[in-house]
Amino acid sequence: MCRWMAWLGQSILIEELLFKTQHGIVDQSLHARMGAEPTNGDGFGLGWYGTGEGPGLYHSVSPAWSDTNLREIAGHVESPLFIAHMRAAIGSPVQNTNCHPFRRGKWLFVHSGYLGGMREVRRDLMLAVDPSLFPDIHGSTDTEVVFHLALTYALRYGLEDDPITALEHTVGLIEATAAQHGIPDAVQGTFGITDGTHLWAVRYATQGPPRSLFASADVDAIHRLYPENERTGRLTSDDRVIVSEPVADLPGIWQEIPPGTAVSVRHGGVLEERPFRPKSPVSVTAFQGVPADA
Amino acid sequence: MCRWMAWLGQSILIEELLFKTQHGIVDQSLHARMGAEPTNGDGFGLGWYGTGEGPGLYHSVSPAWSDTNLREIAGHVESPLFIAHMRAAIGSPVQNTNCHPFRRGKWLFVHSGYLGGMREVRRDLMLAVDPSLFPDIHGSTDTEVVFHLALTYALRYGLEDDPITALEHTVGLIEATAAQHGIPDAVQGTFGITDGTHLWAVRYATQGPPRSLFASADVDAIHRLYPENERTGRLTSDDRVIVSEPVADLPGIWQEIPPGTAVSVRHGGVLEERPFRPKSPVSVTAFQGVPADA
Amino acid sequence: MCRWMAWLGQSILIEELLFKTQHGIVDQSLHARMGAEPTNGDGFGLGWYGTGEGPGLYHSVSPAWSDTNLREIAGHVESPLFIAHMRAAIGSPVQNTNCHPFRRGKWLFVHSGYLGGMREVRRDLMLAVDPSLFPDIHGSTDTEVVFHLALTYALRYGLEDDPITALEHTVGLIEATAAQHGIPDAVQGTFGITDGTHLWAVRYATQGPPRSLFASADVDAIHRLYPENERTGRLTSDDRVIVSEPVADLPGIWQEIPPGTAVSVRHGGVLEERPFRPKSPVSVTAFQGVPADA
Amino acid sequence: MCRWMAWLGQSILIEELLFKTQHGIVDQSLHARMGAEPTNGDGFGLGWYGTGEGPGLYHSVSPAWSDTNLREIAGHVESPLFIAHMRAAIGSPVQNTNCHPFRRGKWLFVHSGYLGGMREVRRDLMLAVDPSLFPDIHGSTDTEVVFHLALTYALRYGLEDDPITALEHTVGLIEATAAQHGIPDAVQGTFGITDGTHLWAVRYATQGPPRSLFASADVDAIHRLYPENERTGRLTSDDRVIVSEPVADLPGIWQEIPPGTAVSVRHGGVLEERPFRPKSPVSVTAFQGVPADA
Repeated sequence: MCRWMAWLGQSILIEELLFKTQHGIVDQSLHARMGAEPTNGDGFGLGWYGTGEGPGLYHSVSPAWSDTNLREIAGHVESPLFIAHMRAAIGSPVQNTNCHPFRRGKWLFVHSGYLGGMREVRRDLMLAVDPSLFPDIHGSTDTEVVFHLALTYALRYGLEDDPITALEHTVGLIEATAAQHGIPDAVQGTFGITDGTHLWAVRYATQGPPRSLFASADVDAIHRLYPENERTGRLTSDDRVIVSEPVADLPGIWQEIPPGTAVSVRHGGVLEERPFRPKSPVSVTAFQGVPADA
Repeated sequence: MCRWMAWLGQSILIEELLFKTQHGIVDQSLHARMGAEPTNGDGFGLGWYGTGEGPGLYHSVSPAWSDTNLREIAGHVESPLFIAHMRAAIGSPVQNTNCHPFRRGKWLFVHSGYLGGMREVRRDLMLAVDPSLFPDIHGSTDTEVVFHLALTYALRYGLEDDPITALEHTVGLIEATAAQHGIPDAVQGTFGITDGTHLWAVRYATQGPPRSLFASADVDAIHRLYPENERTGRLTSDDRVIVSEPVADLPGIWQEIPPGTAVSVRHGGVLEERPFRPKSPVSVTAFQGVPADA
Repeated sequence: MCRWMAWLGQSILIEELLFKTQHGIVDQSLHARMGAEPTNGDGFGLGWYGTGEGPGLYHSVSPAWSDTNLREIAGHVESPLFIAHMRAAIGSPVQNTNCHPFRRGKWLFVHSGYLGGMREVRRDLMLAVDPSLFPDIHGSTDTEVVFHLALTYALRYGLEDDPITALEHTVGLIEATAAQHGIPDAVQGTFGITDGTHLWAVRYATQGPPRSLFASADVDAIHRLYPENERTGRLTSDDRVIVSEPVADLPGIWQEIPPGTAVSVRHGGVLEERPFRPKSPVSVTAFQGVPADA
Repeated sequence: MCRWMAWLGQSILIEELLFKTQHGIVDQSLHARMGAEPTNGDGFGLGWYGTGEGPGLYHSVSPAWSDTNLREIAGHVESPLFIAHMRAAIGSPVQNTNCHPFRRGKWLFVHSGYLGGMREVRRDLMLAVDPSLFPDIHGSTDTEVVFHLALTYALRYGLEDDPITALEHTVGLIEATAAQHGIPDAVQGTFGITDGTHLWAVRYATQGPPRSLFASADVDAIHRLYPENERTGRLTSDDRVIVSEPVADLPGIWQEIPPGTAVSVRHGGVLEERPFRPKSPVSVTAFQGVPADA
């Protein structure tokens, strides 16, 4: 199972969250080594905003716990908005182009979970990707296809500022396609999306309970709960963290995001929830079937 | 420009050809370091037949000259039939899944050259790949698409024993597709194909002279030319080598394969030539356009 | 904790032991991913005898479970004698030159365990390595130093055919050196050594119980225990396996090697035990102190 | 031949120098691919000061031209002081721990060149490294030994603020040691050293002409020479660049540093030259011979 975490708030050294937080995303893999829980050693990715144009990306197929370059970057780059992802591969090769976050322009995209029956639906979904975006799919994960489908809807329906609606269309298309193939568990997981200003997260499964997803509580509440804690004491009202699994043993600081829900976070610590409702496509072949150059 | 070489003949240690031959494929990259010629440092691949089921594969994105694992395998594996390929990437990522040879079942496939306007034609060509083969495309090279198109024709037209005809259909389809996009240089290069018994090689370009391709001469002729040479002296009448560029400074041992030509080599040192003539598709969209599940 | 396994017997495809055996060394790491036990993802090594001169080596810092090259080699190379090792690093970098087996000429050497206080004793032990061997230490593990000390004793005391005695001298020197630094747990672990004909294994700890070590039982006994088992049925009287941890859930097929014991295995399935007793050096500085060029 | 370049001046995106400068260090390797000059594809390193504690390091054994992570870091990290190094290995393995810059605390160290007869002198030189520093040598290059010798002299003679004198002692010791072994070309090359505030560079060879080394000219002079050049127009009087080979085709902007010379650069664009004169050791065995714990 993949894991991811995202930070939006004051500019911090990335290592504060990745390495110095108890049960942080790398710590989770370290603890996995101690026998406590499964390993996520099939590729790591970090995307951050700050200096330079658009988000920076670091992708690696070395296990995060022994990746000295990751440790260096995390210790020497500050960012007000970043996403880290640790991959547990399900079939597709362990290679940099399969590491999250995926990027296009200012956008970053991560996923924990899977598409059901990917071998069966992959071709149909690839066909539905806009021909202008098609040649930029460099890897072989389901997530990269989902991302390019969302970009396709954003492009065609003018949803550049509304990635959640684009993703609702995407999930609707995937579910309709899967249904045609008799696949019940079309979509499973959590998604993280950002444009460098906002951060969106979705928790959803076609069938059964989705993968876990949590947001950090309001900072005032955290300070009341842990008035003496040095690390949480440094959090300001601007800071929010989204995690696929709780980090740090501090009851009360994580609020579970309900199944079928999307949240958006923006600077000022503002977190808003809305239902996530996949939109059925007019026709499954609406985006397919017609050759690009017909 | 990629380079490749193939051996069919007596069983030899792979290093005999890869490392111990003057101007061999790795030596070429070593000499490149000395300033003599361009570098091919974007991935290496070796496919061999012998022990175990089907061909073995070794893929690496380390430069071949410093790849200790490659040297170990070459020094400790004997094979009567193997292909080595050194990649010079043109745009697509340097990753193992983009390294040649590509494999399916008993088949291996290598390419030196490119498809013109790959960004424009990629989607149409991917669409033409048989849906049952589509999910097995793991990388992002043009070559892997060519290979899966040839497999598609082999599957649909019953050409499992006639890969050259399957490739003639494939090249015909690529040229027709490219023409639709106004791309003149549809296909450039040389191809190597083997099923573990036969070895086929093709030299072809839609436009202009194709990449170079050579076959070793008849062994009797080589022995007459170099009666004292210890290494060529060990060649038997069963041995043939196909190379994208001549190796070893021995005039007369390499015969150029003409443009627009396919050769087939089989045990016994038999080498046969035939013209390579792309076959126009009945319709460019014959393999496309219709959704897989329509 | 590192793990290793060695095969001496009939020539088999390496994958038979590495991948197809229940709870085999790679399977162990796969199961680790399921949460069952610790991960060994800090480098893998395989050394084998067969075709070519001396042992072949494959070293990789990719986790073994996702290493496609390892799988290919294991599936296409047969060997009557090989050792595989999976590393769990304790401090030293994850790099190929720190992967076991270590090799010199015909010799291979693996270790599971550690030297106590390596930072303190490293320099003294390096100093004791014969100057002619010193420049061939390319990595930074304790194991590589142990190996070169054993080679030093073999060289100086004429122990080329008696690696266990050479290792007894080595461990004695390490213990004396550690004692000078006030380090109680000088040596911990199991060692595997082979020259391509014999296989030796040692289980020893200066203090407390050593790491586990097992040898496969006599084949007749195994056949009596599991007359119906297809895999054990293929074992012949020539076959022996040494493992750091039992593989396969078959009670009775593994016999524990007692602490402080060395075993030697040779073709014919012959396994002999003897005590392993470190030999105190005449003087700790016997091999040190005198500059090489004095 | 290794290459390196260092920047001290206004804070800039690292890519400005590494990727956007004509004939920059990565461009040099790219052009090498075009046949113009030798390849440097045996490991890349970047050390930079800025955010976080001490210098950050990025080491990679992928060829720099295809290393996407390097491109990302260079495009998203700003620094007023950084050194990049591209390695052409001479014998020692291609691994991250052999990549320059080497680091200890605030210090970074790079080298282009070699020590003569390294196999012969390695042990003696390692012995001369202070025992407290010895265990931190993780790789197998000659450069890392030189660095730890310089650190040894800095430690023992109180030269923490005078790395050039520490390096003069180091080179003197190496030359005396080499002389004992009958090796004439003890030291060859250029060195770059920085503590995050100053930048030092040395050009020296025991025998024959040393590797090339250049400093950028006074910025006023550059502006007078190229009043219209947009890129040099952005240089301020604070900026200095040190390079092993000239970058950019702009005659007059590079001043050669003479053989046997050390330069120091500090903020304000100040560049000072002094002779570099190796200091003979009182005794070659002054730092050797006596066991650490005697």
